[in-house]
Amino acid sequence: MGKTGEFGFIDKIRSAMKTKNPSVVLGIGDDAAIFKPTLGHELIFTTDMLVEDRHFDFKWISPWQLGAKTMAVNVSDCAAMGAKPTVALVSLGVPSAFPVKDLEAFYDGMKGWAESYGAQIVGGDTVGSDKFVVNVALVGEVEKGKALKRSGAQAGDALFVTGTLGDSAAGLYSLQHPSAKGQETAPLLVKRHLTPIPRFAVGRALSTKKWATSAIDISDGLSSEIHHLCEESGVGAEIHEEAIPYSASLIHFCDENQLDPLHFALDGGEDYELLFTVPLAKISDVLQKLPAETGTVVKSIGRMVPKSKGITLINRKGERVALKAKGYDHFGKDH
Amino acid sequence: MGKTGEFGFIDKIRSAMKTKNPSVVLGIGDDAAIFKPTLGHELIFTTDMLVEDRHFDFKWISPWQLGAKTMAVNVSDCAAMGAKPTVALVSLGVPSAFPVKDLEAFYDGMKGWAESYGAQIVGGDTVGSDKFVVNVALVGEVEKGKALKRSGAQAGDALFVTGTLGDSAAGLYSLQHPSAKGQETAPLLVKRHLTPIPRFAVGRALSTKKWATSAIDISDGLSSEIHHLCEESGVGAEIHEEAIPYSASLIHFCDENQLDPLHFALDGGEDYELLFTVPLAKISDVLQKLPAETGTVVKSIGRMVPKSKGITLINRKGERVALKAKGYDHFGKDH
Repeated sequence: MGKTGEFGFIDKIRSAMKTKNPSVVLGIGDDAAIFKPTLGHELIFTTDMLVEDRHFDFKWISPWQLGAKTMAVNVSDCAAMGAKPTVALVSLGVPSAFPVKDLEAFYDGMKGWAESYGAQIVGGDTVGSDKFVVNVALVGEVEKGKALKRSGAQAGDALFVTGTLGDSAAGLYSLQHPSAKGQETAPLLVKRHLTPIPRFAVGRALSTKKWATSAIDISDGLSSEIHHLCEESGVGAEIHEEAIPYSASLIHFCDENQLDPLHFALDGGEDYELLFTVPLAKISDVLQKLPAETGTVVKSIGRMVPKSKGITLINRKGERVALKAKGYDHFGKDH
Repeated sequence: MGKTGEFGFIDKIRSAMKTKNPSVVLGIGDDAAIFKPTLGHELIFTTDMLVEDRHFDFKWISPWQLGAKTMAVNVSDCAAMGAKPTVALVSLGVPSAFPVKDLEAFYDGMKGWAESYGAQIVGGDTVGSDKFVVNVALVGEVEKGKALKRSGAQAGDALFVTGTLGDSAAGLYSLQHPSAKGQETAPLLVKRHLTPIPRFAVGRALSTKKWATSAIDISDGLSSEIHHLCEESGVGAEIHEEAIPYSASLIHFCDENQLDPLHFALDGGEDYELLFTVPLAKISDVLQKLPAETGTVVKSIGRMVPKSKGITLINRKGERVALKAKGYDHFGKDH
């Protein structure tokens, strides 16, 4: 993308980013954006960087899908805190040969997804780079004291997860193994890998209703995330293999290819489901009211135990095995 | 940097980033950080991405210096808004061979500079990358309605600049031209290029005292920044070449090498001085009180004029010439 294209592009996104969100005082076009916080709220602040050929491959993902996914990943962090996203900044490292129309498609995907969750892109930075690099920084709001943290889980709490696990990793596997079977099943798995949907409504319900004692989003696989949750809360956990929810697509895809769905669920990643803990007194609310209010299926997959009991998986034979953190981790997410 | 090193590194920075700033409710270690805004304030939000071999070269800048400079560049955006920085997120793309001790030095430089301006690094993201990439996202606070914008300049306002211009670009020139003369003069210029100091105190004084009608930081050279200011304010400007402030080092370095300091001041960049406009009634305050309160020299270099008169430079011969925007621009900063 040449200079001229770039300037035309920036003018285009600038006009597309004129202030809309009422909390935005000054959008793109100054040294910084200005926004006003809502009284009685705290702010959450998160960021994610995605690098070409490390986190995505344009062979498989379109610029529009990448824009949508990048924003979804940040909104998922926001959902894991029970917060509403408000303003985002987008930094891009763009190769000189990158087509302007692809950059516009990327922004359209990003902008569309931001707005669908009530967030506004208020600026950013665009620089030259050998590989395409995108960083999103997102600020969100949550009612004072109601943010969901990783650190609140208590021994005895039930462990819940939204939706199904393993689909995204299996979708990636099918992209990486073109000869794999699964003409009918793979497309849905690939879709979950390329366009994850953050569990925004569930996060909001859990925080505002105070139904959860802790929460985390599953970006790096269940085996890694349960370790993060237990470490921050100072507890252990036991997970029942037979309770881990799989999609019909994943089960069929694994049957066709002699693969184990458990591997994708535990050690895959990018499902962006929520993993959260619920005190006994709130379990019936979570089982009945939460799905009704959010349209999202949730399932209990185990319980939190004292730290001394460690983190274990009870397999289908009823054997208790230590659960190691094997979820992939692009160098370790340090927030 | 291998996995193990990375995890040790993350543990190290995590322990170094435990909550200190009173506005920080939850620092590093969750899906997002949590902070509380100060009543009666608005928030500013800015980001900058720096890419190895595009914005910096480890031949010339140390990891510590790069960390300090990356934070300084973001604090400068904050200063240009008249705001106080509060919380920052740092995203890093790190080559696998990058030494952990260099990464720690980078963080020490970044952390030290953040804290010296009252800001706290509350998290981030660390990923693998072929080239070293760093993105900082910074949130700051400014008293409601007092943020300095690019858009407030009026025809008739005086145009001021802090410090001296062109030093950083001349320092870069001397790094790129080892055969250039200037054993005595170059080191100070190089220092200004490698470790710029944001004009934080001036920005705060201008916003809280309402002395300026507009402000912008000079990251891309005077000729570019005056165009940004005029465009956002809908006015023109005239700048007197003889009034542009140069350091003694720059003048001597240019004499020794038959270079024109004006070129570095107009079309260089990264001085991170503030360019701001002052209504006639406030000029005496800015000339007398501002230097006394901030210890920073400021100088009037021209005035704002009606848009129809354009943006011109009055050269040393008294001739009026159109001033084109030539300042370098890593693809166009879109905020």
